[in-house]
Parts: sequence; C-alpha cells; structure tokens
Amino acid sequence: MQYPNNIVKKKTSTVSYGNRGMDLENLLNLSNSYYEERNIALIFKKPTPVGIVDVHYTTKGKVIDKAYFKAPSTLDYNGLYRGKYIEFEAKETKMKTSFPLHNIHPHQIKHIRKVIDHDGIVFLVVKIQQLVYLLDGQVFLSFIDQTKRQSIPYSYFVEHGHLIKEKIDPPLDYLKVVDQIYFGGNS
Amino acid sequence: MQYPNNIVKKKTSTVSYGNRGMDLENLLNLSNSYYEERNIALIFKKPTPVGIVDVHYTTKGKVIDKAYFKAPSTLDYNGLYRGKYIEFEAKETKMKTSFPLHNIHPHQIKHIRKVIDHDGIVFLVVKIQQLVYLLDGQVFLSFIDQTKRQSIPYSYFVEHGHLIKEKIDPPLDYLKVVDQIYFGGNS
Repeated sequence: MQYPNNIVKKKTSTVSYGNRGMDLENLLNLSNSYYEERNIALIFKKPTPVGIVDVHYTTKGKVIDKAYFKAPSTLDYNGLYRGKYIEFEAKETKMKTSFPLHNIHPHQIKHIRKVIDHDGIVFLVVKIQQLVYLLDGQVFLSFIDQTKRQSIPYSYFVEHGHLIKEKIDPPLDYLKVVDQIYFGGNS
Repeated sequence: MQYPNNIVKKKTSTVSYGNRGMDLENLLNLSNSYYEERNIALIFKKPTPVGIVDVHYTTKGKVIDKAYFKAPSTLDYNGLYRGKYIEFEAKETKMKTSFPLHNIHPHQIKHIRKVIDHDGIVFLVVKIQQLVYLLDGQVFLSFIDQTKRQSIPYSYFVEHGHLIKEKIDPPLDYLKVVDQIYFGGNS
C-alpha cells in the first residue's frame, strides 16, 4: 500500500519537529517537566501574581469573580539544580535587530543584582530571530550599567549569550548550557 | 497631665506587641521583607496559583472576570539564603492537640522528598497552641513514613521541632533557627 507523498511528509515532520512553533513558555514548561520526571532538577514557573478582588463560594469551592494582574518583582522561573538556587526570566521578541529592555521591569533588574549578591544562578532566556539564547545575569547587568540604550542589540546575544539548541526531548535543554557556564562544563 | 490607666496600657501594648494577633502569613511576609531590606535573604511567598477563565480589556490593562484556585504542588515560600535553596510551607491550626495532615497535599509531600534529594533546605512552619515551630522536612517525612496517623501530635513538635520566637523585628526570626539546624549554628 502506498501513501501519497504529502501524507508521509506530514507524518515525518510531526515526529521530528513536534515542538516547532510552540511558544517559549510552553517549551520551557515541557523541559522543566522532563527535568523533574527524570530527577534532574526542580524548576517551576511561578504562578502569575494576581490581586483578588471578589470571590463567591460554590459547592466545589471558591470561584474568583474579579481580579487583576500584578507586576512581578521577581523572575518567572525558579528552583533547585545540583544543590544550587536558580532563577530566570523568559522572553521572546518579534524584533529582528534588538531586544527591548522594557520587557524587563526595573524591580526585576534590582532583583537580578540581589540574586547574584546571594550567590544564586540567575539569567535571561531570550528568543530572538527564532533562536533561543541564555544571557547570564551579570552579563546582562554589564550591558545595562555600561550603556543608556533602550534595547540589547541582537549581536550582543550572539557575542555574549549562549545558544540553547531546540531538540525533541527536552525541547529546550537549557540546563546543558547552565552546566557549561556555572558548573565548569561538568554534568 | 495624667492619663487614665487603661489608655497608657493600651499604648504600651501597641508598641511592645504590635504583631500580636497577626496571622502567620503576615508575620512571615513582614519577616521576609525585613530579611530582603537588610540583604539577609531573598525569600518570597509564591503567588496563589489561579486558573484564569475570562478576561476583559480596559484602558488600564487586563481585568480577570472569572478564575479558580488551583491546588499547589510545591510549597508556599521559596528563595535563596546563604547561597542555598530554601523552601517551606506555613500552616496554622486551631486544633490544640495535633496538626491534621490534610493541611499538606500529597503532591506537596512528594515535593518535599524531591527537594531533599536535590540538596535543598525544606521545612514546615506550623503555628499550633499559639506557638510557632519549624519542623525539618526530613523529620516530617519520618513521621509520615513511620505511622498511619492522620495528624501530628503537638508533642511531636515540642520534641522534634524548633520553637521560633516571636519578636518585634523581624516578627518571626525563623532564619535564626535555620542557622542552627542547617548551618551548624553559625550566622
């Protein structure tokens, strides 16, 4: 039995590029589940901070009727890897030439400094030009401190960031890059 | 000029026991702010996990019209102290003789095991009989593993827990106890 070419092709691409087109948050959540299931790391996305205004009670529990989103003062993801505290923020931009700094709140920038002071691992994961880079917190702060620019040029990620390769499982193996940068390449 | 006794008394008690009657979450949040301001530790309560069903847009931003509370699978507080990952759950009970175990979700119990496996510091902070105890995660798991009881007797906290003294600033200096248990008493 023969299948038309296009069906075979479609099936192949589903297997090989199942995560293509998925947004950065989903890729990271899947990767974090992979790491947790295999007992590699415990890293979670923090719930979105929400201010709750009104609730009502039902037989199944409380239901929220009114709430609003709060500005985060820490980063999106944190957890525990190889006995170390790890925290990062994930952002994607459709800009081709640079990453606008308004994506990171001033409180979050202060927080990055504090995590470094307290000997934690802290970085950004930025998707730009369809590529995902890890940018170490200290390297990010160097940029902020040395320039008045409102955005980080793409070339800065290429030169000072670390490319995280997209693969099947986990879709974004960012801890491999963390091993290289923060643990001297040992895993 | 003389004030009636009861007014003087009231003023004194406001100064000395300003935090008396405050719930455990507030005491911990104030303590965590104290630790952060003095550059001692970075520990935060995680936002309550909420599933958002409906939102609408206003000139001031998104407003949530319907949402529900999700069951937490990690613990309420986590952060970074002296270069180490720290995570804990805080609960108060009005029961006088024991702490009911249904206060801690099965997912959270699994999570406590994992944090220990990954070399993090993990514990419970339990307010019972108007006293606040820190109970190490491993000691908590020993109880769970060795008994089929549905609650931890008060005496277990007295024997195996560590009393956290309430004071003025910070209202609950639990990191002093953390120093004793996890850092060999050095601070």
